Amino acid sequence: MADNSGTNKEKIKEKVEKGYKSAGKQSIAFKNPPYIIAEASLVGKKEGEGPLGSLFDQVLEDPMIGKDNWEEAESELMKLTAQRVLMKAGLKNASIRYLIGGDLLGQLIATSFGIAELQIPLFGVYGACSTMGEAMSIGAILVDGGYAKRVLSITSSHFAGAEKQFRFPLDYGNQRPYSASWTVTGSGAVIIADHSTKKEAGEKDIVITGITTGKIVDYGIKDSMNMGAAMAPAAFETIKQNFEDFEIKPDYYDMIITGDLGYVGKNILIELLKEKGYDIEERYMDCGIEIFDQDTQDTHAGGSGCGCSAVTFTAYVIKQLKEGTWKRVLFVPTGALLSQTSFNEGNTVPGIAHAVMVEAR
Amino acid sequence: MADNSGTNKEKIKEKVEKGYKSAGKQSIAFKNPPYIIAEASLVGKKEGEGPLGSLFDQVLEDPMIGKDNWEEAESELMKLTAQRVLMKAGLKNASIRYLIGGDLLGQLIATSFGIAELQIPLFGVYGACSTMGEAMSIGAILVDGGYAKRVLSITSSHFAGAEKQFRFPLDYGNQRPYSASWTVTGSGAVIIADHSTKKEAGEKDIVITGITTGKIVDYGIKDSMNMGAAMAPAAFETIKQNFEDFEIKPDYYDMIITGDLGYVGKNILIELLKEKGYDIEERYMDCGIEIFDQDTQDTHAGGSGCGCSAVTFTAYVIKQLKEGTWKRVLFVPTGALLSQTSFNEGNTVPGIAHAVMVEAR
Repeated sequence: MADNSGTNKEKIKEKVEKGYKSAGKQSIAFKNPPYIIAEASLVGKKEGEGPLGSLFDQVLEDPMIGKDNWEEAESELMKLTAQRVLMKAGLKNASIRYLIGGDLLGQLIATSFGIAELQIPLFGVYGACSTMGEAMSIGAILVDGGYAKRVLSITSSHFAGAEKQFRFPLDYGNQRPYSASWTVTGSGAVIIADHSTKKEAGEKDIVITGITTGKIVDYGIKDSMNMGAAMAPAAFETIKQNFEDFEIKPDYYDMIITGDLGYVGKNILIELLKEKGYDIEERYMDCGIEIFDQDTQDTHAGGSGCGCSAVTFTAYVIKQLKEGTWKRVLFVPTGALLSQTSFNEGNTVPGIAHAVMVEAR
Repeated sequence: MADNSGTNKEKIKEKVEKGYKSAGKQSIAFKNPPYIIAEASLVGKKEGEGPLGSLFDQVLEDPMIGKDNWEEAESELMKLTAQRVLMKAGLKNASIRYLIGGDLLGQLIATSFGIAELQIPLFGVYGACSTMGEAMSIGAILVDGGYAKRVLSITSSHFAGAEKQFRFPLDYGNQRPYSASWTVTGSGAVIIADHSTKKEAGEKDIVITGITTGKIVDYGIKDSMNMGAAMAPAAFETIKQNFEDFEIKPDYYDMIITGDLGYVGKNILIELLKEKGYDIEERYMDCGIEIFDQDTQDTHAGGSGCGCSAVTFTAYVIKQLKEGTWKRVLFVPTGALLSQTSFNEGNTVPGIAHAVMVEAR
């Protein structure tokens, strides 16, 4: 575990005690760090066969999830995940003040059709594959600020829906370059609350202590089959800003976790940070790399999609925090802000990354 | 102007003074009502020829706004609007802590490409044509809660981009039914701040006193050419909830302003509220109806799009508040949560509406 550098810890505590919510240039330190009181992750068959397979709440063998098309399948997946996280928390829909949700499909239809029947006031959000970071950030603000006792943050993605939306129809049998990522079929959700639900003394609370909200970063990458390279600079800017805003170094965290940079983006990120004097290599992982086995699953650069970081965080990262393997992590979902139209029109692929500071207490 | 029913006013004041931020089931009463310190509206030629034409900050004659395609034109429109609102406020980008923005295009590309160069931390939001309500709601929360001194909330839409996205290519020359609306080419922006910028004693401050966040409402309408009918039930639910949460009646407001229900949706909304004992007819307007002249502009049911309510609010509604014509309004942008895919797959058109309470003080 990280050596909690006394100076930094005191500085942040001091800031928070002063009610100094706006830390540095792009961050917030929460005065009343909100609790993650429940989490859920549902995935498709391929994700279930991957290295994290046994950790997910449910693996859905049928890619259509009993529906007639990919979009409705994704909506159903999100609905089942929202229901699961409510069940795990022992809560009814009416106990949730806001639902913050998003997905990759145009006009967020997986979300609109997926969560409609829950009848929870909705803020629809979009940050491509960084959406879980945005949804958790806004959720934590609502709870810390006293605007809500409980918020549900959720995102989803579906391999086949994303291929149809962004690339080629599956039936076309297009070849995938090695830099391409594989969109995760999955949905992850957390309930963020203003109170602990700890039942026993030994149990850990999982709290959100701060956030760093990303700007759009565009290094001019135009290859939609190489999104890792497009997103790495955004992850770099947000992580660097987090270090600067809180006056900390990489060793403040036990793990720094990006969303879906994959093998290509990972190396770029490590190099970019190294140039600025930050060495994260020993304490760095990428959800897109963890979720599939590159050697046996033919997923090339790794997993991606709003669901990738959401299910890896809810199934794997929170487990490490609860078990005490890690005490403090920086969760940084990364998004590539392209559309089929912007790609076809020859535009670049701008990136964005939203960081969430999560601690076991 | 409305008779400010003493009882209601006191009740709300009492709630706010207690720090009771969560009003009723779906609303927030702001303890430190944020100020709208600047607003800007840029529109296309047709909107400039409409009844509100002289009120907009700028009318852009060229529908391509000097760009090569409709999407880039909309991005440019949003960029120019963001720059305009900053200029009007006398602020630089760096003074803005968050930009909350969205548009109608798949994956919000008008926003991503439009505001990238401003380099402001971004929360991308989507609520179809209700997006301005969502962007202002989140903006007001960030400021009221002390998370930001200044936030920029912005949305846009473009007629040709929206036709391409949701309906038929313009070149196809498709006939439009009378229930169809005309997507507004326009972008509206506000800067929400924690301080007044009032220069003279007589000047009015414009403040956001509360919000009511909408749920998804689906009455089973399937006609994407009749979005007013699809959105009216959502507007009804949100407005009714606002009355209930704050224990007020329609006469609490001088004007209740929906986004883009148009002529069809307007009548449905009035009837639905009447059935519940709320008569809003005397104090009701719809931005989609105000922005075009139905007789001469061939716009059928009225204007629509994220830009419709945004430019009508920033150019017309704020003016009425500043001049003292109205003291208190409920601004309720309305959204139809469909996509081309969901429509083609035979899905319904769910609606959502987000209400923002705005006052001149």
